[in-house]
Amino acid sequence: MLMMRDLKKMFEPESIAVIGASREPNKIGHVILKNLVEGGFSGQVYPVNPSAEIILYQHAFASVKDIPSQVDLAIITTPQKAVLKVLEECGEKGIKNIVIITSGFAEVGNVEDENKVREIAKRYGMAIIGVNCMGFINPYSRVDSVFNPVYKLGRPKAGEIAFISQSGAIGAAVMDLAAKMGVGISLFVSYGNATVVDETDLLEHLYQDKRTKVIAMYIEGVKDGRRFLEVAKKVTKKKPIILIKAGKTEAGVKAAASHTAALAGDYSVYSAAFRQAGIIEVESLTDLFDFSKIFLQPFPKGKRVGIITNGGGIGVLTADQVLLNGLEIAEYKLETKIKLREAMPMHVNITNPLDLAGDADASRFRQALEALYADENVDIIILTPLMQTVHLDPSIIDLIVSYSQKMEKPISVITIGGSYTEQNRALLENGGVPTYTSPYVATKAISKLAWYAGRYGKE
Amino acid sequence: MLMMRDLKKMFEPESIAVIGASREPNKIGHVILKNLVEGGFSGQVYPVNPSAEIILYQHAFASVKDIPSQVDLAIITTPQKAVLKVLEECGEKGIKNIVIITSGFAEVGNVEDENKVREIAKRYGMAIIGVNCMGFINPYSRVDSVFNPVYKLGRPKAGEIAFISQSGAIGAAVMDLAAKMGVGISLFVSYGNATVVDETDLLEHLYQDKRTKVIAMYIEGVKDGRRFLEVAKKVTKKKPIILIKAGKTEAGVKAAASHTAALAGDYSVYSAAFRQAGIIEVESLTDLFDFSKIFLQPFPKGKRVGIITNGGGIGVLTADQVLLNGLEIAEYKLETKIKLREAMPMHVNITNPLDLAGDADASRFRQALEALYADENVDIIILTPLMQTVHLDPSIIDLIVSYSQKMEKPISVITIGGSYTEQNRALLENGGVPTYTSPYVATKAISKLAWYAGRYGKE
Repeated sequence: MLMMRDLKKMFEPESIAVIGASREPNKIGHVILKNLVEGGFSGQVYPVNPSAEIILYQHAFASVKDIPSQVDLAIITTPQKAVLKVLEECGEKGIKNIVIITSGFAEVGNVEDENKVREIAKRYGMAIIGVNCMGFINPYSRVDSVFNPVYKLGRPKAGEIAFISQSGAIGAAVMDLAAKMGVGISLFVSYGNATVVDETDLLEHLYQDKRTKVIAMYIEGVKDGRRFLEVAKKVTKKKPIILIKAGKTEAGVKAAASHTAALAGDYSVYSAAFRQAGIIEVESLTDLFDFSKIFLQPFPKGKRVGIITNGGGIGVLTADQVLLNGLEIAEYKLETKIKLREAMPMHVNITNPLDLAGDADASRFRQALEALYADENVDIIILTPLMQTVHLDPSIIDLIVSYSQKMEKPISVITIGGSYTEQNRALLENGGVPTYTSPYVATKAISKLAWYAGRYGKE
Repeated sequence: MLMMRDLKKMFEPESIAVIGASREPNKIGHVILKNLVEGGFSGQVYPVNPSAEIILYQHAFASVKDIPSQVDLAIITTPQKAVLKVLEECGEKGIKNIVIITSGFAEVGNVEDENKVREIAKRYGMAIIGVNCMGFINPYSRVDSVFNPVYKLGRPKAGEIAFISQSGAIGAAVMDLAAKMGVGISLFVSYGNATVVDETDLLEHLYQDKRTKVIAMYIEGVKDGRRFLEVAKKVTKKKPIILIKAGKTEAGVKAAASHTAALAGDYSVYSAAFRQAGIIEVESLTDLFDFSKIFLQPFPKGKRVGIITNGGGIGVLTADQVLLNGLEIAEYKLETKIKLREAMPMHVNITNPLDLAGDADASRFRQALEALYADENVDIIILTPLMQTVHLDPSIIDLIVSYSQKMEKPISVITIGGSYTEQNRALLENGGVPTYTSPYVATKAISKLAWYAGRYGKE
C-alpha cells in the first residue's frame, strides 16, 4: 500500500457490527460482543447472526445489509467458509473498516482465499485488520475485540504506549501483564497475517496518533522490508520503537510460517535493518514494556546516574550495572555533599550510591531525593528502596511520585520483594514511575533512554 | 578456619537468647523476639534486657548469665558499644553459637572491635554469624532472626534451595520474592562481614545438609579465595551452586567495601575461578531463584526439547531461545507423530513446537503431554500454555503437576499474563513445577541444567 491509510475510524468507530455474534458463552463471537456491550463502548453495537433474534439483550440482524444505520467497523468472527460472503456484504453495505478474527487462510496454506480477501478489500476500498488475528483494544474509545474473558485477561488502562503484535495470543498476554503492572496503553493491535493492513500501515498511523508516545512491537516477518525501513526511520525520530523479533533461528522461522504465514527470513538482515532505522531491539518478551515505559520519562541531559538506596547490596549491584551498561556514576557537586552531610546521620556515607542505611525512613529519602534532584551533576535518578524494613513507610510512594511528576529528570525505581512490595510497586506505576525488579533490566532500559535522548533528543 | 565447623546446633537450636530484646515495636530486638515467639519455634526463647522484666509476655533476664538453663544460640541485637561485653558473657555462659546483627565494625573502619570479636570467638570456641548481618531463617526448625515484620516481608515455605547472602537486605528481599513465588528454601543465611563464619564454612555445612539440593549465593567478596575454590569444587560435584557476584566494577567494589567490608577484588579473577569450580554465575538478581529451581527437576538424558503450546507466537519465541541457548529441537519418533495425528484435530500441525491452537482445552494438552513424555527422543519438556483463552480451564494445573511428579523428565512452564495467570502459576510452583515468565530466562536456566547434568550427572 503506497498511499497512507486513514485508520482513525477503524480505531474510533461510532458503530460496530459483530458478524458471527453468538449466544454460546464459549464462542468468540459471544465474548467479543459481551466485552463491547459491558466494556463501556458508548456507540452502537449490532450483533449479526442469521439464526438468532436476541443476543445479550441486543436485537440481532441476519446480515449487515439489514442494519438500518451506518456501520463504521465490522468485526468478523464467522467460520472460515462464511468469511468471503459476509465480507462481500460488508462491501455492499459500505463498511470501510473490518477486523477479521477468523483463521484458516495462508497460515494453513489457503493462499487462494487470502488473495480473495485482498481482492474484495481493494474493490471496496476497505481497510482490513487480520485475517487470523485478535483485532485491537483502544482503551480511549473502549473498542475491544480481544476474545478472552476479562476475568482471565485484564485490560490495561489508557496510557501512552502502543503495542502492535503479529501474534494475537502474545499480544493479549502482554496486555494482561501490562494491566497487572499498571502500565497504560494508547492502542493494542494484533494484525495476524497482515492481509491488507500491515505493520507499516500501523506504524504510519501511530506516527500521527497524538496519544501514542512510544511504540512496542512483536513481529515475526515484515511484508515489505524497504517500505518498513523507510517508515520506521521516520517514526523513530519522533517516537521510539521497542521491538522483539520472533523467528531468529531455523526452528523459529519454520514455526512462524505456520503461525502467521510470516516470512521471518534471515535474522541478521532484520537485525541490521532495525539498527539502521533506530529501532531498539529487545531479547525478552518481558523487556518489551520494561523498556517502553522508561521512554515516558523526560530525556536526561547526560548519562550521570545518582543512586539512592536503603540496602547496601542492591546499591552495589546497581552501581555495577550502571557502569556495565555505559552509564556513569555521578560525582555530586560540593554543595550537595555539604547539604547531605548536614542532613544525614553519621553512619550514612555521602557517596554514590548513597546508602541511607537500613534504618532510613521516608524523610531521609526525601532529603536525599531533594538534594540529588537539585544537583546539576546528576542527570538520572535511580531509587532502590527495599520496602520491607521496619522504618520505611508507604509515604515514600507519594514522595517519589511527586518528584517524578516534575518531569525534569528521569526517575525510576528498583525494588524486590513479595506481596507488600508488589502493592507499593503498583502504586508507583500508577503514579507514572517506571519500576523494575532488578538492576540488570532497569539499567539496560535507562541506557537505551540515554542513547535515544543523545541521538534524537535535540530535534 | 581450616577445620570444619559444626553448625548443626546453630541452625537447629533448642533454646535461643535474644540479647537486646526490646519492648518497642520498631526495634530490631523486638521484631526478632516477636517472630520467634509467634513464628512457631518450639524451643525456649529467653529475652535478655537489663531494664525490662517482661517482653512480649516472656520473662526477661538482665544478662545471659542469669538464664538458668543451657542456651544453644544467642542473637545479639544490642547497640555496638555493648556487643563485646555481652559476647564475653555468652562465652562465660558457654554459648557456642552466636548471631551478631549489630553493625558498626570493619564496614565503617572499626577494624579493632571486629578483631576483638574474632578473638573472643577463638577463646571460647564460638561460631559467630555476622557481624553486620540479618542472621538466618531455617523454615524447618522455625528459627528466624530476620528483623523485618512478616506483613512486609513474607517467609518462604520449607524446601530444598539454600540461599547464603553477604547482603542482609538483598537476602531478605529475595526471601520475600521466593515466598511470593511459592519457592521453598532449606536455609537462608545472611552473614554480613563474615567475621568468624564465612561463605566457605556455610558451603561446607550445606554440602552435608540433607535438606539442601541446590545452593544459591550472593557474594561481594570472598575471605579466603583458595579455600573457597577448593570447597566449591567439591560441593558443585554434588550440589549445584548458582551465584551472583556484586562489585564487578570500580564503583561496585568501592560500594561493597563500605557495605560489608568486602574485598571485592578483580572481577575477571573471580569469574574465572567460579567457572573453574563449576559454579553457575548469573547476571540478574531475579535469575538467582529462576535458575535454582530448575535444578530440583530430574536430570535430562540429553538436550532435545519438546515444546507444547496453545499460542503460536510464544512457541516461535521458545523455539528460537532453545536453539540460541545450545539446546535442540526434538524430532519426535514416528509412532509419536502417528499418535498425535490421530488424537489432534486437523488444524493442529504435528510439529515441534507443537501448537495445539487457541481452541485447545486441557484434554488436548493431556494427549500432547502424554505423547511427548513417552517419546524417547524428547529429553526435556517445556509447556507454554497461555492461560487466558476461553477454552483452557485450570484442570491443566493438576495435569502438569502430576506429570512433573513422575520425575522422569524435566518439565517447566512458561506463561505470561496478569492476575489470573499469576494465580495458576503459583499453583504450579506449589506443585513443584518451575515456572517462568519468558522463554528467554526459562531456556537459559534449562540449558544450565542440561550442562550440569552432562558434567556431573553420571557421578
